[in-house]
Amino acid sequence: MDEFFIQQLCLIGVGSIGGSLACALRKAGVVKEIVGVGRNIENLKRAVQLGVIDRYEQDLQKAVVSADMVVLAVPLGAMESIFKSIAPCLNKNTILTDVGSAKGSVVQAAVNVFETLPPNLVPAHPIAGTEKSGVEAAFAELFNARRIIITPTAVSDKHAVLQVRSMWEACGAEVIEMDVEHHDEVLAATSHLPHMLAYTLVDTLARMDDSQEIFDYAAGGFRDFTRIASSDPQMWHDICLANHVALVKVLERFSSELKELTEAVQRNDSDYLKAMFSRAKRARDTFCNK
Amino acid sequence: MDEFFIQQLCLIGVGSIGGSLACALRKAGVVKEIVGVGRNIENLKRAVQLGVIDRYEQDLQKAVVSADMVVLAVPLGAMESIFKSIAPCLNKNTILTDVGSAKGSVVQAAVNVFETLPPNLVPAHPIAGTEKSGVEAAFAELFNARRIIITPTAVSDKHAVLQVRSMWEACGAEVIEMDVEHHDEVLAATSHLPHMLAYTLVDTLARMDDSQEIFDYAAGGFRDFTRIASSDPQMWHDICLANHVALVKVLERFSSELKELTEAVQRNDSDYLKAMFSRAKRARDTFCNK
Repeated sequence: MDEFFIQQLCLIGVGSIGGSLACALRKAGVVKEIVGVGRNIENLKRAVQLGVIDRYEQDLQKAVVSADMVVLAVPLGAMESIFKSIAPCLNKNTILTDVGSAKGSVVQAAVNVFETLPPNLVPAHPIAGTEKSGVEAAFAELFNARRIIITPTAVSDKHAVLQVRSMWEACGAEVIEMDVEHHDEVLAATSHLPHMLAYTLVDTLARMDDSQEIFDYAAGGFRDFTRIASSDPQMWHDICLANHVALVKVLERFSSELKELTEAVQRNDSDYLKAMFSRAKRARDTFCNK
Repeated sequence: MDEFFIQQLCLIGVGSIGGSLACALRKAGVVKEIVGVGRNIENLKRAVQLGVIDRYEQDLQKAVVSADMVVLAVPLGAMESIFKSIAPCLNKNTILTDVGSAKGSVVQAAVNVFETLPPNLVPAHPIAGTEKSGVEAAFAELFNARRIIITPTAVSDKHAVLQVRSMWEACGAEVIEMDVEHHDEVLAATSHLPHMLAYTLVDTLARMDDSQEIFDYAAGGFRDFTRIASSDPQMWHDICLANHVALVKVLERFSSELKELTEAVQRNDSDYLKAMFSRAKRARDTFCNK
């Protein structure tokens, strides 16, 4: 096996995730040149200043043509148009991957553009991130000991899969393979659903007549609980559209259990409440303290 | 105004909240003797070892008769039976207060026992706490710069209100007065509802076929979001029964907004999703960063 090394990384989207990947790869010494592409020139200039990228390129095709690794770190809603722009100039040997939070929609976008899926496309999703956006929030340790799910397609080339795996391992991450559909179901439950609940909770309270007072009396637990409601609205809009089948399924499951709980509270059902809270506490303590 | 000082504090329930109150009062030098009462002798012995209380008393009536301040720091479901036990020997001058998370049920329990409310009863609720239980989790700084809501009744004596206020101010807390019903509505929204959501989320996921795998892929946000599902099930059972009217109201309000969101996801309603997430992020950033 050749040692893993990227001659030229083309990073499309230099935000907190893409920027952190760049920092981590540079820190690991496995990349020669990092070229950033993005719509916001100020952000790209800042990324150069911060040393996150070596230079930026305004012409997407120019940036892609000489890269051996292309990473799409853009909102899910932008994937298809970027595939369209880079398709004509994508080198046959260039590895293509992304960091999107849903994977079915990325594969579908690729099918729409390329007709047959490129063997060098290996979709991936780092299970890491903060509620902060932008290159200022990027740091090399973000993926350290975190999980990265890669979801090779049926036609993904073995070498390409290995390259994407090696890239993330170089960042200190643990890489797991999963099929696309399963990824989207698991993430709907563990990430997309909690975000919907946090957004809905904050919005429900904000719409109450005495909302200022209500937030005034919120304790520390409330802050933790709603931290994820500070996440980027555009990103979460995109995730909802991209993963709406799995998300609706788990939202309905949650709603039905919340309805049961509400009815139990209404009829003062001691046994139900004790059993449910104890079961949940046990599950949380067991699973989250591993 | 006389300087605030407690000759003998009778602390009924020496857990994390009661214990922290004891530690804070001692640190502030405003108490001579702290006598703990509780059902669990081992816990009381531990509290003496830790220096949280001076001594413990197994006979509730003996502990109450010579106290100038009695604090009930027990689950809401135990309030009425404790009122019953102490009623015959409660000194006319003794101040009586509690730390329950709902206030209407405490006042109702007092009405049931005393027939007419004692003028020296001043219900209170510290907006502080952790998901950890027991005297081991007690520390003097828990209430520092935190809010304490006191909810005097229509017949509460002015001097008694002042004493309870002074006690909490001595712990470094900010004391606010509120009427009982309003307290219960505000807390249902900011504390009781989030706990119901966290318990329901964890339980929904735990009941899925691939629950172990699902929890394996949960990221940091999930840990924060579900931390409160590790809270004491008995305590939350009691809170649900005690505050079920206000809680059901806010649960239904939340469910109806979650249903709207689910429908918006289902029909890929871009405008709805963007507007809702942006509104929630704005509210969260504005209210919680004050």
